[in-house]
Amino acid sequence: MRKIVVIGGGAAGFKAAARARRRDEMAEITVIEKSRHISVCRCGMPYFIAGLIHEIENLQETPYGVIRDEDYFRRVKNITVLKETEAKRIDRKEKVVEVEQNGLIEEIPYDYLVLTTGSTSSFPQIPGINSKGVFWLTNPSDALTIVDYWEKEDISDAVVIGSGPTGMECAEAFRLGMSVTVIEIMSTILPQLLDAEMSLIVQKHLHDNGVKVMTDCTVREITSDGGKVSGVKTENGFTEAQLVLIAAGIRPDVSLAKDAGLEVGKAIKVNSRLQTTDPYVFAGGDCVENINLITGKTAYTPLGSVASKHGRVIGDNVTGGMSEFRGVIGTAVVRVFDLTVAKTGLTEKEAEDYGFDIVTSMAPGPDIYHHFPGRKSLRLKLIAEKNGKLLGAQAVGDGVVDKRIDILATAIWMEAEVEDVTGFDLAYSPPYSQVMDSVIHAANMIKNKLDGLVDSISIIELKNKFDSNEDFILLDVRTEEEFAKGHIPDSRVLNIPVEDLRESLHRLPDDREKEIIAVCQIGSRGYEAVRILSGAGYKNVKIADGCMALWSFNLEVSK
Amino acid sequence: MRKIVVIGGGAAGFKAAARARRRDEMAEITVIEKSRHISVCRCGMPYFIAGLIHEIENLQETPYGVIRDEDYFRRVKNITVLKETEAKRIDRKEKVVEVEQNGLIEEIPYDYLVLTTGSTSSFPQIPGINSKGVFWLTNPSDALTIVDYWEKEDISDAVVIGSGPTGMECAEAFRLGMSVTVIEIMSTILPQLLDAEMSLIVQKHLHDNGVKVMTDCTVREITSDGGKVSGVKTENGFTEAQLVLIAAGIRPDVSLAKDAGLEVGKAIKVNSRLQTTDPYVFAGGDCVENINLITGKTAYTPLGSVASKHGRVIGDNVTGGMSEFRGVIGTAVVRVFDLTVAKTGLTEKEAEDYGFDIVTSMAPGPDIYHHFPGRKSLRLKLIAEKNGKLLGAQAVGDGVVDKRIDILATAIWMEAEVEDVTGFDLAYSPPYSQVMDSVIHAANMIKNKLDGLVDSISIIELKNKFDSNEDFILLDVRTEEEFAKGHIPDSRVLNIPVEDLRESLHRLPDDREKEIIAVCQIGSRGYEAVRILSGAGYKNVKIADGCMALWSFNLEVSK
Repeated sequence: MRKIVVIGGGAAGFKAAARARRRDEMAEITVIEKSRHISVCRCGMPYFIAGLIHEIENLQETPYGVIRDEDYFRRVKNITVLKETEAKRIDRKEKVVEVEQNGLIEEIPYDYLVLTTGSTSSFPQIPGINSKGVFWLTNPSDALTIVDYWEKEDISDAVVIGSGPTGMECAEAFRLGMSVTVIEIMSTILPQLLDAEMSLIVQKHLHDNGVKVMTDCTVREITSDGGKVSGVKTENGFTEAQLVLIAAGIRPDVSLAKDAGLEVGKAIKVNSRLQTTDPYVFAGGDCVENINLITGKTAYTPLGSVASKHGRVIGDNVTGGMSEFRGVIGTAVVRVFDLTVAKTGLTEKEAEDYGFDIVTSMAPGPDIYHHFPGRKSLRLKLIAEKNGKLLGAQAVGDGVVDKRIDILATAIWMEAEVEDVTGFDLAYSPPYSQVMDSVIHAANMIKNKLDGLVDSISIIELKNKFDSNEDFILLDVRTEEEFAKGHIPDSRVLNIPVEDLRESLHRLPDDREKEIIAVCQIGSRGYEAVRILSGAGYKNVKIADGCMALWSFNLEVSK
Repeated sequence: MRKIVVIGGGAAGFKAAARARRRDEMAEITVIEKSRHISVCRCGMPYFIAGLIHEIENLQETPYGVIRDEDYFRRVKNITVLKETEAKRIDRKEKVVEVEQNGLIEEIPYDYLVLTTGSTSSFPQIPGINSKGVFWLTNPSDALTIVDYWEKEDISDAVVIGSGPTGMECAEAFRLGMSVTVIEIMSTILPQLLDAEMSLIVQKHLHDNGVKVMTDCTVREITSDGGKVSGVKTENGFTEAQLVLIAAGIRPDVSLAKDAGLEVGKAIKVNSRLQTTDPYVFAGGDCVENINLITGKTAYTPLGSVASKHGRVIGDNVTGGMSEFRGVIGTAVVRVFDLTVAKTGLTEKEAEDYGFDIVTSMAPGPDIYHHFPGRKSLRLKLIAEKNGKLLGAQAVGDGVVDKRIDILATAIWMEAEVEDVTGFDLAYSPPYSQVMDSVIHAANMIKNKLDGLVDSISIIELKNKFDSNEDFILLDVRTEEEFAKGHIPDSRVLNIPVEDLRESLHRLPDDREKEIIAVCQIGSRGYEAVRILSGAGYKNVKIADGCMALWSFNLEVSK
């Protein structure tokens, strides 16, 4: 009878235990968890703070409303759960785990040990970080403490340090009752998910929802008054706050593994069967490192979806199976107020850092047929190698954004090339997509670039051109009505609607070398204009990728 | 200067023309269309009838609200459009098309000819089909005529003949103001999209929305009164109707191609570059046949999304390019009231007909995290070869259904195996999916079956078992509360909640050979029960795929 011991009662641990039970009705399976919370969906904690999920116990429930407590695991899965029990030491030679419960030390023998010790929030070295009212969100008890503090204290201002997914979700939650400032040390928000031009869309949306964002900004000190936090000092000044959330990333909890002499890199090292350097010790979830299948390098990707897959593979392998976890490609999604923000694969910046020779495209547009009621926005960016291999995608919008990224995540997983994507047989009907879905459209645009039909600059490069007083023409080919509703306020901007362009070439300079950047609303007319001008002999014509749908800077308002 | 002539002003034709222009500013491009409507999104016509799209001209508009009329094509794309002009004959030797406009015959020379002659509705041999009030929906003029007739006549009852996507969309539209009966000759509705157990869910939803459905039913005659339709006679009786829509499929319009001596199979035969048997004549859209990439056989797939891709490939190839259209895999989607119905690849029935040795799985569940507000339903069926290769998927629900099918369409396009799907790095966060998305869950279930962990029968087989008085136990392992809310009304049904199962084995017969079928709500507890019973030595235990979430038959209502 196999003895399987799991240390850590989160997603990976219980998945491993449950899967092991399904494959082996006889095994003796024990899960050890140091806190009093087991099998909680931690990704739901920001939504508990926001009140969208009413009780923290809901995050512990099955789809049919039963709480996954010790009794549940005992009766349904015949799994022994030891809560508030800390694994102190692993003796790999004797194959025992030394645990402490209520001050009592006990040794639990194992045939197979599973480490799912999870992660903790990063705890930056900031003076004043121990003040009352400074929180992080690692565990359900943190979520409960934050809600309790919010209810009892008089809080009008919150600061969130860090603009990753958790920071964004908590900023939205706090905004329900507070002024909120987000402080990010990098130059743009959500830097691990988005390139700058996409990030600026989200930043504008935060602004529109009353969240102040400070980027390129380092926190110097958290100030307090009578022990309670009173604000945050940065290099730029002081921001008042009665509540501060540290959301500066998370770190794997590897102390037990390290003490046991297991190899640790970015996190615990495992092979594709999720074995550590000891073949009888498996590890999964937030405490291990993964392989990024695009770069072939190790990556730290602490996600519930990954942990859950790990658990299944471990459950197979500790019961005589031969399952493998191949790796990750870096898919992620976060909701930011009305926007969905998602990515897969590499960002443009990551791809460049890894030395790939790349080409990108930007496809903004409605997420369904443009005249169907309920259409919403979708801005999709695609990144590929110049040899055609897909590398990554990002999408932002209030429409069905995440599943477009899932389509591309599937494509990248299957090592698709841009040419493959152009042929994808996707489901079309007016309530669901444009006749050529944005995914395919974005791939076609990359092909157009590779075929030399259109050259482009990014919307950020366009902004830089304006700011640096370069001499060029921005040819806005939208209708006069669209132009009047808002356009880039600069004397270098010329409005000629695309339908008038062929007969209005005299309004452009004779000099065929003149740099002309075409824009419209979402790109199709701008592309048309580039082709018309190229046909007329203009040599230095480009489109600004994403056009006005990507322009997140101020526009002149017509009178 | 190339002369490109396109016959047919629909999706494929104008896409080919526009793409050709973008690649060749100098070409002379002419589009010939016999009706007065050009570049209309025909897939939107049912929604125009339903009033969701207000004007038929909306279906002719660009995303920025400009109508794509002759003037638009002339000014923006420098394309000549000849409306209400009929191509009468193609002289391939002389490379001219003979056209008739206002009774005048003219010859138009071409270097490259593009046939995008489209399709017409099937017109079954039914007595009375020419009565006033009998319609089909091929062209915008049909849509306008139907709306006009509905407005002017006193209509209380409609009959829709045929339950394909157009039939479903029109049934929903008519239901806004009429009693509606759908008549289908096959044994289930939407037979090209769904297997029987999935189809029954849609049929129940139609019933719940007041649409009467008659399957296995052949129309004998359409009756009329004073020249106007009065009803439909079937083998089962008479159904009153003042409006009848024939939605019995569509047929390619290949007469011109046939007369010109081009090869025609299911439709016009083309190679992967979309050349007909004459290398200077290309064809695309509803008038050509495609290759199904799964079966390698020809298929007729008249869809706007396919036509649009055809157009792009043709536009490349008539301007010196070397583009290919690889084929289709049979993806389709239709909205039926609150449900989205989608499929890709082969249905189980098709796969069996083609002789594949298959295994299927059924994953019903919420489309997002089960405790997140706004969760909706998603029932996903997966079909694979026993060697692991994916063959098809179907999904029905009021949640985000279509994009799950798109993920699987991408997987099938890339020749994925079930094992690949289990690793897919999909975007997870509570507002978007379960921690293990249904797509991955369905793949895991196929693996479980292939690994011998669980055996199953379909919900239809279960129904047959009940109806045929077989001796077996249906073990419903839901909670007593769930059971009380509704269960299969039969004495062979036994309710033991899964959490009580290990300690209640004495309530089951000692005979370990006894056939036991386990069900719960969506399958996870049923699977758990199968594993528990197998562990206890029961040899003949199965789960009913999809469990109660797939049971579309009557349930006993508890007192």
